[in-house]
Amino acid sequence: MSFVTGLKCLECGTTHPYTEFRYTCQKCGGFLDVQYNYDAIVDAVDLEKLEKRSPLILRKWLEFLPIENPYLIDRVTLGESQTPLLKCDRLGKKFGLKNLYVKNDTHFPTCSLKDRSMPLVVLKAMEFGYDTVAIVSSGNAAASLAAYAAKAGLKAVVFVGGRPSMGKIAKIAIYGPTLIWVKGCYDDAENLFMSAREKFGWFDCNGLINPFRCEGKKTYAHEIASQLGWKVPDLVIMPVAFGNGMVATWKGFKELHQMGFVDSLPRLIGIQPEACAPIAKAFSEGEEHVKPVVPKGTVAEAIAVGNPSFGGKRTLEAARESGGAVIAVSEEAIISAMKLLAQNAGFFAEPAGAISIAGIEKLLEEEKIAEDEEVVSIITGHGLNSPDVAVKICKQPVAIEPKLKEVERILGYHST
Amino acid sequence: MSFVTGLKCLECGTTHPYTEFRYTCQKCGGFLDVQYNYDAIVDAVDLEKLEKRSPLILRKWLEFLPIENPYLIDRVTLGESQTPLLKCDRLGKKFGLKNLYVKNDTHFPTCSLKDRSMPLVVLKAMEFGYDTVAIVSSGNAAASLAAYAAKAGLKAVVFVGGRPSMGKIAKIAIYGPTLIWVKGCYDDAENLFMSAREKFGWFDCNGLINPFRCEGKKTYAHEIASQLGWKVPDLVIMPVAFGNGMVATWKGFKELHQMGFVDSLPRLIGIQPEACAPIAKAFSEGEEHVKPVVPKGTVAEAIAVGNPSFGGKRTLEAARESGGAVIAVSEEAIISAMKLLAQNAGFFAEPAGAISIAGIEKLLEEEKIAEDEEVVSIITGHGLNSPDVAVKICKQPVAIEPKLKEVERILGYHST
Repeated sequence: MSFVTGLKCLECGTTHPYTEFRYTCQKCGGFLDVQYNYDAIVDAVDLEKLEKRSPLILRKWLEFLPIENPYLIDRVTLGESQTPLLKCDRLGKKFGLKNLYVKNDTHFPTCSLKDRSMPLVVLKAMEFGYDTVAIVSSGNAAASLAAYAAKAGLKAVVFVGGRPSMGKIAKIAIYGPTLIWVKGCYDDAENLFMSAREKFGWFDCNGLINPFRCEGKKTYAHEIASQLGWKVPDLVIMPVAFGNGMVATWKGFKELHQMGFVDSLPRLIGIQPEACAPIAKAFSEGEEHVKPVVPKGTVAEAIAVGNPSFGGKRTLEAARESGGAVIAVSEEAIISAMKLLAQNAGFFAEPAGAISIAGIEKLLEEEKIAEDEEVVSIITGHGLNSPDVAVKICKQPVAIEPKLKEVERILGYHST
Repeated sequence: MSFVTGLKCLECGTTHPYTEFRYTCQKCGGFLDVQYNYDAIVDAVDLEKLEKRSPLILRKWLEFLPIENPYLIDRVTLGESQTPLLKCDRLGKKFGLKNLYVKNDTHFPTCSLKDRSMPLVVLKAMEFGYDTVAIVSSGNAAASLAAYAAKAGLKAVVFVGGRPSMGKIAKIAIYGPTLIWVKGCYDDAENLFMSAREKFGWFDCNGLINPFRCEGKKTYAHEIASQLGWKVPDLVIMPVAFGNGMVATWKGFKELHQMGFVDSLPRLIGIQPEACAPIAKAFSEGEEHVKPVVPKGTVAEAIAVGNPSFGGKRTLEAARESGGAVIAVSEEAIISAMKLLAQNAGFFAEPAGAISIAGIEKLLEEEKIAEDEEVVSIITGHGLNSPDVAVKICKQPVAIEPKLKEVERILGYHST
């Protein structure tokens, strides 16, 4: 049904058949990438007809995705559709940008970008005959997987490491997965997860392992191109943790370009918090590989990944191939971006989501953006995912007596 | 530009011109309702063409709405589009319903149904030349208004009464409105708001006052009919506070029926928490007017309105005219509904949002629903709006040592 031709190892180039599912290369253990018959996709796709389809991501971009049984889409979907891409003139003016667009990936059923890739992964689990999907994560990805598994009627097992807040636990637990909270650091949870996955045969939905997460996320490219009338913006700015989103977006744009659906490519800019910026460091030092760091505390904890593993290498490649960059921004810049975004564009993002706005000032200073370029900043998680940060950064109001005079005082009116 | 003919008083029938804006009837002080030239709408609308439009609510249903300057839509929108209507078979089976649909109004930029009506109201403020929009609310409506005002570049003034949680305050404050927290009860805040509005000439965006809120909310009918292929479901179930949403939905369906776009009408069922159910009480006692009650504590605090004022009377009319009902459900039923909804349909709703699922069991018992009827339950607010409830009702996981044996124990495997 799909146009997939196989799974190709990104390290040694070996192509594996698509029928037997595997996570990594049998020969060298490298990451696998889904390959397509692009000529056949070009023959099959009529863009004009496609634009009139259901806005559900999996239906709209069906030919570009590894879906064998489209009838499963109804069983797995929570209604995740194209997210808004809005020109934000008031926000743009704050930076001196004439064409700033915000792509709002908080506008998803579980309020984060994870819903862009998780329905496809759960659908693939069903196609390959798994009854249990599993992930290790401390927040958005775990909630998203648990939600889609609940819809589809699959079992979900979620490993959580570190010291998650009770709010984050509740956001996951409400969907009823088996929740395994592992003492120790995140690495302990990850190692235990890998052993358990091997032993119990779960479908591993982690972004660095499961090749279908990338296929879901690459639809960033399809949506942005479509929403701009099949033109490509000059820049796409996005938050970077492991870098999977940026790698996937680059794959998406390159595929569309190769097939002739767009006639140029954007520069991709990844943003990390200074408190945990191993990929930005490797980029600025011209390194090919990323040296792990120990994360310091940051408001953008959702993307504080000290060891991005081979995601780091691929992110550096995407940044360099596209003529973009990976940069780091300060805590102050992230908090300021949250406020600027909410107060000038009306979007409440979590710190890790607002970080792609935080980078704009620095990019202008370093002349990595010109003021008349078309810039798309992707906001990846809703502010309600970490309300504690908003509580901290907003001035708390003081309760007043129910008197008009008090209202006047707050409004700054002077009695005469 | 629009097909509005005037503002008609729902009490005495006087029609006021639409050009001079007013909140209530000049003659009797009654609530005003927006009137249209329905024949002209029928002539102007081609449903097939309309279905291919942008999914933005204000663009898609333009002819049915009181919009004079469509170019303002871009200035005010946050991308609020048709929300998903999904057939939820696994959830339906839990109740023995064959055709249960969930309409997910948590899928909005500020994560609640308020985004269905607020962009229109802010747009009307701009059309009528106001520079400040204002509301009294303790949560979702205030956040929604502040967000749309931020996008449009209008000033927002938000009055909050009672003892709001810091999380709710942050959800509003992040958008930068003037936030006025009034000591005392909600009524004190409301009275002070009315005096201040008169004095400072703000555009009042409260649902019981501003006739345009109803026009925004009536698109529930348009979306549901469109998503079901221009058929009308047997029942629409929704949460009820003041009842504005139910009244507006009824207006929407009646208009569509009058214009011949649909050939039947649904029964409307409103649900209130037993802890605060003045409209349900009046319904069951056959009263025409609603006697105010003092709300008891409820997890569904977002809809705990003890005095729905004339909203109550209109809600009773909508329930009776449509052959529906307003019923009350227990706290246990609400919590159970939150879990059932998340674990079988993948939607995390706040208690006040999940309440329309909580009513199903009782409606079946009382034979107000038959098992093969088409039922649409509207979920109105995301669970992330009140994470404390989810924290309370979810079993907290116990942290385990990073050992495979511990995982086996949790999964219920027995060592041999």
